[in-house]
Amino acid sequence: QVALLDIDICGPSIPKMMGLEGEQVHQSGSGWSPVYVEENLGVMSVGFLLSSPDDAVIWRGPKKNGLIKQFLRDVDWGEIDYLIVDTPPGTSDEHLSIVQYLSAAHIDGAVIITTPQEVSLQDVRKEINFCHKVKVPIIGVVENMSGFICPKCKNESQIFPPTTGGAEKMCQNLNISLLGKVPLDPQIGKSCDKGQSFLSEVPESPATSSYRSIIQRIQEYCDLQHFQEEKTI
Amino acid sequence: QVALLDIDICGPSIPKMMGLEGEQVHQSGSGWSPVYVEENLGVMSVGFLLSSPDDAVIWRGPKKNGLIKQFLRDVDWGEIDYLIVDTPPGTSDEHLSIVQYLSAAHIDGAVIITTPQEVSLQDVRKEINFCHKVKVPIIGVVENMSGFICPKCKNESQIFPPTTGGAEKMCQNLNISLLGKVPLDPQIGKSCDKGQSFLSEVPESPATSSYRSIIQRIQEYCDLQHFQEEKTI
Repeated sequence: QVALLDIDICGPSIPKMMGLEGEQVHQSGSGWSPVYVEENLGVMSVGFLLSSPDDAVIWRGPKKNGLIKQFLRDVDWGEIDYLIVDTPPGTSDEHLSIVQYLSAAHIDGAVIITTPQEVSLQDVRKEINFCHKVKVPIIGVVENMSGFICPKCKNESQIFPPTTGGAEKMCQNLNISLLGKVPLDPQIGKSCDKGQSFLSEVPESPATSSYRSIIQRIQEYCDLQHFQEEKTI
Repeated sequence: QVALLDIDICGPSIPKMMGLEGEQVHQSGSGWSPVYVEENLGVMSVGFLLSSPDDAVIWRGPKKNGLIKQFLRDVDWGEIDYLIVDTPPGTSDEHLSIVQYLSAAHIDGAVIITTPQEVSLQDVRKEINFCHKVKVPIIGVVENMSGFICPKCKNESQIFPPTTGGAEKMCQNLNISLLGKVPLDPQIGKSCDKGQSFLSEVPESPATSSYRSIIQRIQEYCDLQHFQEEKTI
């Protein structure tokens, strides 16, 4: 059982990407019900609370924090194995609140996404510093948009050139795991826009094998951590 | 005289992209001095106040708003023709504060940047709604990362496919100007990482002509607006 919580309050893209646009959150005796993509995948996002997908949530920090608290307290997630939280970029209200509200529970760790160029890596180093400061373990870094193979001539271009060595070099320097690199594939954007699973739609692509290997590495990390916790109890 | 103010407090990329990394803000009798790229281009960013480019600013909204107020009140911008404000994505503290603090002055308008796919356009429609609600005129929309020409075979790929018609269709539907489309060019990322001006480094590229034409359209918009204001005074 997997739960996906979108805490990008001002730019919630998860409903569209999951094919759940127009879905509503239902209230039951036990709280808000998540919206289910499949039986084992429940989703919560502010997008489900808006009357139109173009509606803007024009809120300062405190109101955003209040909604994040509600998402954690008032949603009946049921029995879940994984709670995945998607955050906006930055190191501000959303990030501080989710860490604070989940401090009594246990956060396995953060998966940090970057693109290959230094301008992005600089922002990501700030996120890594944030994790260190608030004591959230880092599972690893994913390099997204990592190179593009021309469909016509098969030549590979670095669209976002890794001028300082990309995520690989950064991870070496900071002693953090590189979980994988996902190549640029126009089908990924298409699948997101259509709300379809890229992994099911294009099962044979290099990007799909990259995603699968990243997922496996995250699972292994979590399994190992839980095993070690059980040993120490 | 142009002033560039970076109000992305948690992810300031302007110092790196402008080649100003490591520069410090100087205090004078008349306030903080901006950092100058050239004589006619002064820049202010929280990046100049950090001891390392990887330092994270872990602040909730109110502290971010306080710094934005300081940037407007305490910086000695001198006589300037244009103040360009670079915001993070979203419709939250930074956006509300800058609009509020500049309300007594006059905001010519917002330039809104998107990529071609629907997932981005959805966020951008929220920004457009924000501008309508806070009564900031919209100068127009720029479509970034608008198509990639393979350097080897010259075949064009839509890396971020415009599944719903891209910025062009959105602008038609919302009756907003499309200021231009900037193609994906790996040299742009390289110039940003090196802190060099792409327009000077690669003066003959399609992306450069696109940038030039966008700049011209923005200038024309502002000139026309100022002319009409003078007429009504």
